[in-house]
Amino acid sequence: MENPLTGYPVVIEIPVAWGDMDSFQHVNNVVYFRWFESARVEYLYRLGTIGMKNETGVGPILASLSCKFKMPLRYPDRVLAGVRVTNIREDRFTMDHMVFSTKHQKAAAQGDGVIVMFDYRSNRKVTVSDELSRRIMTLDGRK
Amino acid sequence: MENPLTGYPVVIEIPVAWGDMDSFQHVNNVVYFRWFESARVEYLYRLGTIGMKNETGVGPILASLSCKFKMPLRYPDRVLAGVRVTNIREDRFTMDHMVFSTKHQKAAAQGDGVIVMFDYRSNRKVTVSDELSRRIMTLDGRK
Amino acid sequence: MENPLTGYPVVIEIPVAWGDMDSFQHVNNVVYFRWFESARVEYLYRLGTIGMKNETGVGPILASLSCKFKMPLRYPDRVLAGVRVTNIREDRFTMDHMVFSTKHQKAAAQGDGVIVMFDYRSNRKVTVSDELSRRIMTLDGRK
Amino acid sequence: MENPLTGYPVVIEIPVAWGDMDSFQHVNNVVYFRWFESARVEYLYRLGTIGMKNETGVGPILASLSCKFKMPLRYPDRVLAGVRVTNIREDRFTMDHMVFSTKHQKAAAQGDGVIVMFDYRSNRKVTVSDELSRRIMTLDGRK
Repeated sequence: MENPLTGYPVVIEIPVAWGDMDSFQHVNNVVYFRWFESARVEYLYRLGTIGMKNETGVGPILASLSCKFKMPLRYPDRVLAGVRVTNIREDRFTMDHMVFSTKHQKAAAQGDGVIVMFDYRSNRKVTVSDELSRRIMTLDGRK
Repeated sequence: MENPLTGYPVVIEIPVAWGDMDSFQHVNNVVYFRWFESARVEYLYRLGTIGMKNETGVGPILASLSCKFKMPLRYPDRVLAGVRVTNIREDRFTMDHMVFSTKHQKAAAQGDGVIVMFDYRSNRKVTVSDELSRRIMTLDGRK
Repeated sequence: MENPLTGYPVVIEIPVAWGDMDSFQHVNNVVYFRWFESARVEYLYRLGTIGMKNETGVGPILASLSCKFKMPLRYPDRVLAGVRVTNIREDRFTMDHMVFSTKHQKAAAQGDGVIVMFDYRSNRKVTVSDELSRRIMTLDGRK
Repeated sequence: MENPLTGYPVVIEIPVAWGDMDSFQHVNNVVYFRWFESARVEYLYRLGTIGMKNETGVGPILASLSCKFKMPLRYPDRVLAGVRVTNIREDRFTMDHMVFSTKHQKAAAQGDGVIVMFDYRSNRKVTVSDELSRRIMTLDGRK
């Protein structure tokens, strides 16, 4: 089987908690967004945007987020949460999120998040710098 | 000012918890999806889909969900979470979610959720019944 | 019936969210601790410890927390979370938490939290100041 | 160094999520109780109480829970959550919870939970059966 996480430069493994399930006995929808976040933060750490923010006052903000739920999940399971950047525009870039169930060996959810670069000093959006674009291209293995 | 929640037949009020904030000192993104859910469940209760599921085996499933974050929120605040149905198609309908900050008197987020009607007995999607459509139209005040 | 929240100077009202329930179809145990926290933070705000921390570098830290679960809760319901200080010692004080179900008109949980005063500058515990003791006594209505 | 998790028959490893931190930039107190729960559920699964409940109508209920916070935690880290039974009485047993930070190689929290055996058919507490006691003794390695 082709690994659906091929092409995702950052993949983290997370155990499904029993408490992630809601009263329908499936993992609750909000948990997928937490998993997305955990992968996104790992990606942004590797990208070095945390350090950039301290130096330059410019940091990432989540502008929008979506999820398509493909399969209900239950405890016990372990998910792989993969993330990659699929699109860089003037003042934003798009992160593609994938959640994969290791128990079922199937994609359980896919989502997209839009990140805006924000200057916390001038309080406005700024363009994605060439330096940041380069780091993304490198991390995503497209360069 | 025009009330942005006009036109939303179901609106619930929720206090922002201090613990809803993350280490950026803003309400964490996953909390908005929990608020959406609370409004959605209230809508579905009023719609009577819970009772329908017990009688007919057919119930709603969340197929996809999205959120546009318009403004960061902080404790203390109280949000109004409004929800309405904007689109009914053969086997699904779309719920429009609005989160409004009472402190700032501004919309803080807007989202869309797609609900599929699912027959838990035959394990497949089913069409939105005329009866369900009528109830939605009535609840949404378009009839 | 005697109101079990008599004697609690800070009481907040919180709607039970559908998503607070776990797969046993009761409100999950961790949610009670979130409610305790919401009441505790409200108390500490009214006490002014937030301002004190900015001025003096001394702030509250949660050293321990416990909960007795008296009754399972379900959505829909609204809880009242009350909090009071029951004991002030040299370097700590104890907060008594009460959760009351408005639907059942019964206490649903009771807990105790121990707060230590911590000097973030010298990185050590400090004594509860006379000023702080006085504010607690006043807020708790014992003075 | 002696491993503080020696003696805990069930130990699970959980990554700290960035979103587990609150606006004090430490892992929020409620997260520890979620970790306790994850370890507790794993223990109860291994004990077979889930199957017992289906057969006999008797299952475990959490009567009380406490936590001593020993050290603040931050992302990134991975915790080990260990659990063992320390006391079996007529109608209840006590679970001892330990959370260990792998980054700091130190205990971060310790807690106690009291589990009552409950007959969901007659709606009352029941005694801990000899069979259940034996299973606990075996799992805890004391027999």
